Amino acid sequence: MKQEQAARFSASLAPALLRDLDQMTTEKGYSNRSLAIADMIRDHLVEHRQKFGNEEIAGTITLVYDHHKQHVQATLTDIQHDHHDVIISTLHVHLDHHNCLEVLVVRGKASQIRSIADELVAAKGVKHGKLTVTTTGKDLPV
Amino acid sequence: MKQEQAARFSASLAPALLRDLDQMTTEKGYSNRSLAIADMIRDHLVEHRQKFGNEEIAGTITLVYDHHKQHVQATLTDIQHDHHDVIISTLHVHLDHHNCLEVLVVRGKASQIRSIADELVAAKGVKHGKLTVTTTGKDLPV
Amino acid sequence: MKQEQAARFSASLAPALLRDLDQMTTEKGYSNRSLAIADMIRDHLVEHRQKFGNEEIAGTITLVYDHHKQHVQATLTDIQHDHHDVIISTLHVHLDHHNCLEVLVVRGKASQIRSIADELVAAKGVKHGKLTVTTTGKDLPV
Amino acid sequence: MKQEQAARFSASLAPALLRDLDQMTTEKGYSNRSLAIADMIRDHLVEHRQKFGNEEIAGTITLVYDHHKQHVQATLTDIQHDHHDVIISTLHVHLDHHNCLEVLVVRGKASQIRSIADELVAAKGVKHGKLTVTTTGKDLPV
Repeated sequence: MKQEQAARFSASLAPALLRDLDQMTTEKGYSNRSLAIADMIRDHLVEHRQKFGNEEIAGTITLVYDHHKQHVQATLTDIQHDHHDVIISTLHVHLDHHNCLEVLVVRGKASQIRSIADELVAAKGVKHGKLTVTTTGKDLPV
Repeated sequence: MKQEQAARFSASLAPALLRDLDQMTTEKGYSNRSLAIADMIRDHLVEHRQKFGNEEIAGTITLVYDHHKQHVQATLTDIQHDHHDVIISTLHVHLDHHNCLEVLVVRGKASQIRSIADELVAAKGVKHGKLTVTTTGKDLPV
Repeated sequence: MKQEQAARFSASLAPALLRDLDQMTTEKGYSNRSLAIADMIRDHLVEHRQKFGNEEIAGTITLVYDHHKQHVQATLTDIQHDHHDVIISTLHVHLDHHNCLEVLVVRGKASQIRSIADELVAAKGVKHGKLTVTTTGKDLPV
Repeated sequence: MKQEQAARFSASLAPALLRDLDQMTTEKGYSNRSLAIADMIRDHLVEHRQKFGNEEIAGTITLVYDHHKQHVQATLTDIQHDHHDVIISTLHVHLDHHNCLEVLVVRGKASQIRSIADELVAAKGVKHGKLTVTTTGKDLPV
């Protein structure tokens, strides 16, 4: 497969930055600098592409809340069912007698995903919420 | 950069990834690839240097990978079982014939969780991975 | 039934459920509804009388319910949090605008798990629930 | 809502069976006999309908296996990806260093679901596997 052969390129950096990169590469357990750089590029590509609202993305929405708080669970479930076409499933972990961690796996247009996440995170009773954007894997070379 | 002359280095990437990088470099308005890469490295250094100590956190680790790639799944499962005390459970979604999205719910010492996440994200074959830190809910008033 | 004369009793059901029962009674070839109901009861008695002791088991509890029904979700969550030591995590799938499928992964003493499952399945608003007992894998050679 | 008014019906049972039913009703925590009977009927309807291959069902497939056994995980993942249209998602719990419990949430034609379950349960290295059939909730009155 000709296309898959690795392409070499060169770039220039401040020497201190290059040293820091190499140290981080080692600390994170990459076997070489190219693999670390490839992961960074993919990470930034994912971030960059989600700005275009029509791009299809996958992601997770992480929520922590106290299920004893009035209505919080009913509210979250209602929002989720309104969007059951983009929410693939939800994993619920009972952290303790009060606190729940819920993580939703979502897939759809970036703009829609962001707006669902905003709605969930803003819901009364949610202690902490976060959208993590990732890729559907389709257009991300490895 | 008066104090230190720029250092040249070279790396190798999949050609498709290099093309994607160059397109993003242009779209983001960088005048050359080196500047874009320098910014990415600094961004990841900031994240890498965040202190993770002995405090207990909860979080999710999101991974996207192609399960057909040699050994990637076995590697990920081995890492996960080595740490089954802090990994509560893993939700696996089959995005398409090739791509998997996996989200792990974790809970434990911040430093340990960070190091597991680094190991998983750096594993060969993982297209994109991300640690999302949240709270166990205990010390976060709402 | 020479020894004991049959006892008549009455019960009330949603009319749609009564119609479905009668259709199934016919399709299964019972000559009347009482015979069908007697078989069902015996079937459930056999299951109910299985001994569940102190041995450690793993299992799943599968529940389908309409989250719009008054209180059903709050009830289920309360029960789950009361037993968060044996419920590892819960996967929630939004089947449609009304219906939820929830599957709990549980691990603990057989008798305790059976009693949690009974409580969840009997909760008002649960359309269908089922405990599936499996192994922790420890004492089962392959 | 006229349709929703409960319908009364009567049936006759051996007195001993009626007593056993009432005892089970109490032990399982139902507040009355009608609720217990309704749950039994729904349970049998779910079982009965899945015999018709084209009926749409939901369900869970529970698997326990040792992920160190040669190829078992790759085999299970390959089977799952071949059917990613009916497998909504998979929850993976690391029971200990060796044993995994995996539960798949599935939805589709009864015949197809049964054949996927058979394939997974029969896979070499699976210690115990079980298909639990439930309902999509659509045609099951509560």
